[in-house]
Amino acid sequence: MQQLFKYNWQVRDEWFDWCDQLPDSELNKKRTGGTGSILYTLFHIIDVEYSWIRAIEGKEDVTFSFEEYQSINKLKKLSDTLRLELESFLDRLEEINLEEKVKASWQEDEYIAENVMNHVLVHEIHHIGQLSVWARELNKKPVLANLIGREL
Amino acid sequence: MQQLFKYNWQVRDEWFDWCDQLPDSELNKKRTGGTGSILYTLFHIIDVEYSWIRAIEGKEDVTFSFEEYQSINKLKKLSDTLRLELESFLDRLEEINLEEKVKASWQEDEYIAENVMNHVLVHEIHHIGQLSVWARELNKKPVLANLIGREL
Repeated sequence: MQQLFKYNWQVRDEWFDWCDQLPDSELNKKRTGGTGSILYTLFHIIDVEYSWIRAIEGKEDVTFSFEEYQSINKLKKLSDTLRLELESFLDRLEEINLEEKVKASWQEDEYIAENVMNHVLVHEIHHIGQLSVWARELNKKPVLANLIGREL
Repeated sequence: MQQLFKYNWQVRDEWFDWCDQLPDSELNKKRTGGTGSILYTLFHIIDVEYSWIRAIEGKEDVTFSFEEYQSINKLKKLSDTLRLELESFLDRLEEINLEEKVKASWQEDEYIAENVMNHVLVHEIHHIGQLSVWARELNKKPVLANLIGREL
């Protein structure tokens, strides 16, 4: 499970670098499918991951406003900052009871912590797949999604 | 890890059902990004998963020709047939040494079995994300990708 989080973070950072070749207008441009834009997809991935991991830890949700993070530099900084807390959580994963139910403030139902962790993993990979189609529609080569061959 | 395989299979089956609303011409139509078509994406997911799991088991690779599976019914049947073998593998997962190196006939390098398993999982989710963009481009609602809320 830790490996898949590391994979997601590595791929996400590569997408941040990839975005450097595009002007803000392209990053913010409304596209078909997914969350609607490249920049908002990255914001959404960061936001959802952080919110769910805090929910597993029983911590109150912190909400971020997209309006404050509408550039790759700001988003990357947010991602880096939150990652410190997430890394510390993953380091302590063996102490976490993944069988426990998690109640998130924005959800009616409770979910088993292990399912929540898997949900977060799948969520990012799914959205990254969407970015890869938009990249090709821009005639750009997307970030490689392969997990094997990476140093994780 | 088992849960993520089950998630992938459930989502894949929902995409098979989803495809029923489209004529073969749309399923085979060349699209931008990913593997190039909806049908070939599903074939590719099935093929890659099966090949890698067989490689982990030290079994010889079986190659499938896309030309023989160019309909949803044929693909679904292939997926169902191979799944029996994959389910049996997952049931025996505790007996498998996931630290062992895997040498696939189509790869030069060897990879740790656990990484291969994660690679297979990520591979399918990534391609399904691509299908979801193509679905919206067809003005269709894609299959829901959420993991929480599913019976797995």
